[in-house]
Order: sequence, then C-alpha cells, then structure tokens
Amino acid sequence: MKLYDLELSGNCYKVRLFAALIGIKLELVPVDIPGGAHKRTPVIELNPLGQLPVLVDDDVVLRDSQAILVYLARRYGGNQWWPDGAAQQAEVMQWLSTAANEVQHGPNTARLIDKFGIPLNKEQALAVSALLLSLLEQHLNQHQWLALGRPTIAECAVFPYVALAWEGGVTLDPYPAVRAWMGRIKALPGYVGMSGIA
Amino acid sequence: MKLYDLELSGNCYKVRLFAALIGIKLELVPVDIPGGAHKRTPVIELNPLGQLPVLVDDDVVLRDSQAILVYLARRYGGNQWWPDGAAQQAEVMQWLSTAANEVQHGPNTARLIDKFGIPLNKEQALAVSALLLSLLEQHLNQHQWLALGRPTIAECAVFPYVALAWEGGVTLDPYPAVRAWMGRIKALPGYVGMSGIA
Repeated sequence: MKLYDLELSGNCYKVRLFAALIGIKLELVPVDIPGGAHKRTPVIELNPLGQLPVLVDDDVVLRDSQAILVYLARRYGGNQWWPDGAAQQAEVMQWLSTAANEVQHGPNTARLIDKFGIPLNKEQALAVSALLLSLLEQHLNQHQWLALGRPTIAECAVFPYVALAWEGGVTLDPYPAVRAWMGRIKALPGYVGMSGIA
Repeated sequence: MKLYDLELSGNCYKVRLFAALIGIKLELVPVDIPGGAHKRTPVIELNPLGQLPVLVDDDVVLRDSQAILVYLARRYGGNQWWPDGAAQQAEVMQWLSTAANEVQHGPNTARLIDKFGIPLNKEQALAVSALLLSLLEQHLNQHQWLALGRPTIAECAVFPYVALAWEGGVTLDPYPAVRAWMGRIKALPGYVGMSGIA
C-alpha cells in the first residue's frame, strides 16, 4: 500500500500516525512539493487537486486524509476506531468535518503562513484557531477523548495540526485539557511523532 | 426529530434536501441568527460552535451538516446513500471533506461576503471556488454522480453551495458538466429547492 507523502505535512502525518497505531505498513513515496511534483504525473492524475496525501491500495485510489482514515479503519482497523452504528459514526464524523474545516483553516493555515511563507490571512487563521481550541478545551474538560469515550480516527484527524500549532504562533498555554489529551495520544501503543511533534 | 434551522443557510438546506429525498419528516425549529439566537440557549448548549444546523433525534444531538447526513443515511436512508464497504465509504467521504473544506471556503464564503456583508477575503474565496469547480467539472465530465455511480449523500453535501454560487458572484457558465449534474439532482424524486435555488 503506497502513501504519496510529505514528511512535513500534518495531513500526511494523520495517515502515518493511524497506520502506526493499528500496525499496518505503508510504502512511503516522498513527493517533492517545493519542486512542484504534486502538480505533475503521477500525483496530479491520482489527485486532480494536486494535494497530498494520496493513498493507493491495489485498485483503491484516495485523496483527502479524512477519507483515507475512514478507509483504513473500515478495512484494517476495526470498529473501535470507526464504528458501525449511525449515532456513533456521526459522533466521530463531526470531528472529521472539524478537521477538514476549522483545523485546516485555523492552526494549519497559521503554520502555512509562518513556516512556509504562504500569503494567507493570519488574523483570520488566529480567530479560527481560537474558536477551535475553545471548542476542544470545553469538550476535553468533560471527556477523555473526542468521541465515544475512546481513541478513534477523530484523534488522528484533529491532533496533528493542534500539536503543530506552535509552528504557526498559536500557543496551547491557555488550554490545559487540550494538552492533557495530547499527552494521552502520545501514550497510545504504536504512537509515532513527526518533525515538530515530539 | 428536530432540526434547528435557518432557511437561508445552505448547510441547513443540505439536511432538508436529504430528508426530502428519503422521505423523512423534520420538525423545523427556526433560529433567529440576525438576532443572535445561535449564541444563546438552547442552541449554544447543543452546539458550542454556535452554528447551524443542529439535529436532535431523541438522545442523539449532532452539529455539522456532514455528520447529520451520515447519521440520517445510516439510520434511515439505507446503503444506497451511504454505503457500508471501506472503499465505498471512503469514496463518498472524499466529497464530504470537500464540502467541509473547499465548498465552505469557496462558494459559501463568497456568498457570505456578497449576500450577508460578512468581511471575509473575497479574492481567496474566488480562487478556492475556481479550484473546486475545476475539480467538479473534470470529475462530472466522466461521471454522472460524485461517487459510486449513483446519488449519495455526497450530492446533498456539495450541491447546495454550488447551486447558490451565483449569490456570491461565482458564475457556473464555464462548467457545463456541473450544470448538467445539478439538473440531474433537481430531477430526483422528492427533490426540494430553497431561496436562490429553483
């Protein structure tokens, strides 16, 4: 199973983290993003958005980190990570949308600006980050995990860019419950980090 | 089953549309957003983000339109709308992420600026809209539907703000395959529109 990958991408790390947690092996195919390889063959045919990660598992080709998490969990990970029931799936799904929306446009965008010099709106990224972190803090004050009372793919979707927030100038100091939750994730069997996340 | 609703919200319309397509009845609870009711009891307790829609079905309380679609499909809609298999779920899921990310930050944001006067970045919203519409056009040139060769909840997640794009100054003239796909959705049994969508 191939993962078209960029080591510094939190979206790619979501997949590497989950694969490590469930003990499956990925063949990493590094993509030279600074050199524009994501806009050329073969990546652009696999994902017309020209974004990473892309997963190829036999005849299954998937763009979008959240979709890849759903696929890996459903096929290889078991119900504890992505459940079967309607209310349970929807409870996890709320956080997958939060990952695609607020996480992407909050801490991820702040980091793109500060770390990679991409000209996006910093003020707006900080406002979205504050909204997201307040939501997480409020939730994690009352719950150990994002959904279902146990680790799920919601953790793999939300954790990476929260843990990388400091690279975008977003401090987690005011959010003790978020920091405690990050500690619980780092203690999971099989956990791996990335550059910027110990 | 109660839907806390705003008629003009495309995110609320996603849920009203899907409920109509599968023939389930929602009790609509209009929320006075201009009056700030989404930041007060009971909405703020149901969704700390202070956003609509919110669905309440007995003891199930859900924020996020994509999560609500997954819930309704899994519980009431059947596998044709939200399938069971790993690759199939992931194929639909890609478009649910696109709805939470590019649709939200492209045509939805452009409309928030033009129609509601919210001070967001129009240039960026137009750039994201162009990327999204190119992706859709390329895909729908080769496929009748977004995923699985049939209508799924992906249609309900992506269609509303594409159909409302004109209210944000985004024209669909260069995208004939997108317009043809919109026509197929409007021809589905049970289809309902909203203000701005015939």
